[in-house]
Amino acid sequence: MKAAFIGSGAWGSALARHLLLAGHSVTLWDHDRENLEVVRASGRNEKYLPGIDLPEGFRVEAELDRAWPRSELVVLAAPSKVFRQITARLTAYTGFLVSVTKGIEYDTGLTMSGVLARTAPRARAVALSGPTLAMEVARGVPTAAVAASGDEEASRVVQSWFHRPTFRVYTSTDVLGVELGGALKNVIAIAAGLCDGLGFGANSKAALVTRGIAEMRRLGVACGAQPETFGGLSGLGDLVVTCFSPLSRNRTLGERLGQGESLTQILAKSVTVAEGYPTAQSAWQLARRHRVDTPIIDEVYAMLYQSKALRQALQDLLGRDSKPED
Amino acid sequence: MKAAFIGSGAWGSALARHLLLAGHSVTLWDHDRENLEVVRASGRNEKYLPGIDLPEGFRVEAELDRAWPRSELVVLAAPSKVFRQITARLTAYTGFLVSVTKGIEYDTGLTMSGVLARTAPRARAVALSGPTLAMEVARGVPTAAVAASGDEEASRVVQSWFHRPTFRVYTSTDVLGVELGGALKNVIAIAAGLCDGLGFGANSKAALVTRGIAEMRRLGVACGAQPETFGGLSGLGDLVVTCFSPLSRNRTLGERLGQGESLTQILAKSVTVAEGYPTAQSAWQLARRHRVDTPIIDEVYAMLYQSKALRQALQDLLGRDSKPED
Repeated sequence: MKAAFIGSGAWGSALARHLLLAGHSVTLWDHDRENLEVVRASGRNEKYLPGIDLPEGFRVEAELDRAWPRSELVVLAAPSKVFRQITARLTAYTGFLVSVTKGIEYDTGLTMSGVLARTAPRARAVALSGPTLAMEVARGVPTAAVAASGDEEASRVVQSWFHRPTFRVYTSTDVLGVELGGALKNVIAIAAGLCDGLGFGANSKAALVTRGIAEMRRLGVACGAQPETFGGLSGLGDLVVTCFSPLSRNRTLGERLGQGESLTQILAKSVTVAEGYPTAQSAWQLARRHRVDTPIIDEVYAMLYQSKALRQALQDLLGRDSKPED
Repeated sequence: MKAAFIGSGAWGSALARHLLLAGHSVTLWDHDRENLEVVRASGRNEKYLPGIDLPEGFRVEAELDRAWPRSELVVLAAPSKVFRQITARLTAYTGFLVSVTKGIEYDTGLTMSGVLARTAPRARAVALSGPTLAMEVARGVPTAAVAASGDEEASRVVQSWFHRPTFRVYTSTDVLGVELGGALKNVIAIAAGLCDGLGFGANSKAALVTRGIAEMRRLGVACGAQPETFGGLSGLGDLVVTCFSPLSRNRTLGERLGQGESLTQILAKSVTVAEGYPTAQSAWQLARRHRVDTPIIDEVYAMLYQSKALRQALQDLLGRDSKPED
């Protein structure tokens, strides 16, 4: 099978390695031509996935319009903020599209599959999501993920292509639930990181995660997703790994804020996008639109976009729905 | 309010400190008279809660039958295996009983409240549970817990006694669900620790936690608990903290097994009981009785009680319900 990667950051590169090991053919495209050439020449994506060799046999393509046309599968691993713009160039594509981007479009409230239905309506789109830290998948750590699509046959085809003994793929028809789980958990993870950065403990973070999954489910169901999806790999599983692993970018963003770095400093120094940052704004907007109570998202939004003091935000959060009578 | 603690290990001592700070009067009893005397003399329980000073004003009582009679509240923090034997001596007690012991009796399949209904039927029993690492509560880390009882007024009284700004107490009427969550999560945590000890990553552990909560819910509902309880603090919250914190005894038990220590060595060296060890056996038995499918509990049981090879158990577990067609 011939696959093209649109976006070759950490997750794109880890999945490309994965498909190469499964015996597929891979072409990498990325906006960053310079790094793409380094990857080609060195056989590694040192910038995003340090220390990991890519198997031989992949090729790189600097021109987007030449990267995908002869592929049976296009894997979309670009940041959410450029997702519409990039996928608008795939309008003619009729093969399988797998989105691994976790985000919500601010203007429309759409997840990436929602965007694809407009930009590339002839393709067979599938969302792949779950607790899949890129570096762990790149190291062959046993991982499980979900391939979700309204097109059940498409998700089964994608499942068969991505499945390896160390990477189990389940299928779901609730693509909205799977995508909202993956996107919203990044916002909760920023709050979890803040717990870490401000020296709150695991008890606090566990309480936050418990409320976080309920909040994600509430907002997701208001948008039309199935409630049980949020208890699965792409909801709870992804939330847990993101809130507790030191490798998570979104948790780390919160942690660094908690340790006193400014948002501007952190964003300037980051080579990879913490998707929770734009998603906090989109999710906040989405909750307004659906009139859903989302205390964690609200506090993260206030902190990132309205200069609310971190400690105050977290205290308002941990205290907010206290029921004791004192 | 006058409280007596039956069992003064890590969690008993942390809660005793907590009640003292809330202005209550505290008497400590423990089976280990020698350590009790050290605690009295030093004002610390160095053996179980190192580095934590207890506030002044508590007293110790070496005779169980003299410890509780004039207390309005008895906190039961003894290991599950001696719970029936100890509480049988409280038959005459008519005040409030708070059980913080997380376990399931092997012979009967009863949780601690179930045992109390038989051993101390005149008392007003409440279960207190949740993501409450003892050392964190002892350090004043913000924590949330659940007080559960069929006697709603009793759980509100207990809530008011235990509540402090850094320790929020919610109430529930699903005492069985709250207790089964607290007990079963210790078994899942042993499997999570095994992931750590064998070098599996956070992706694997997140997948395990996701399946673990579903398994806990399935078994709990078969026993008569409410399904939603398992998504709350005493289910998901406690599971998450236990599977991810280095402080958890049950996770650590699994980790040390994974690193090559024998069960006999670990049990011999431990000053505190990892309740997941006896609970694995009781839970396995309970699942048989209710004919519930519990793959994680089954593998932990096979590993601890039937000498099944660890790596084989974990691989059988992570591979067991793979759906891909290859």
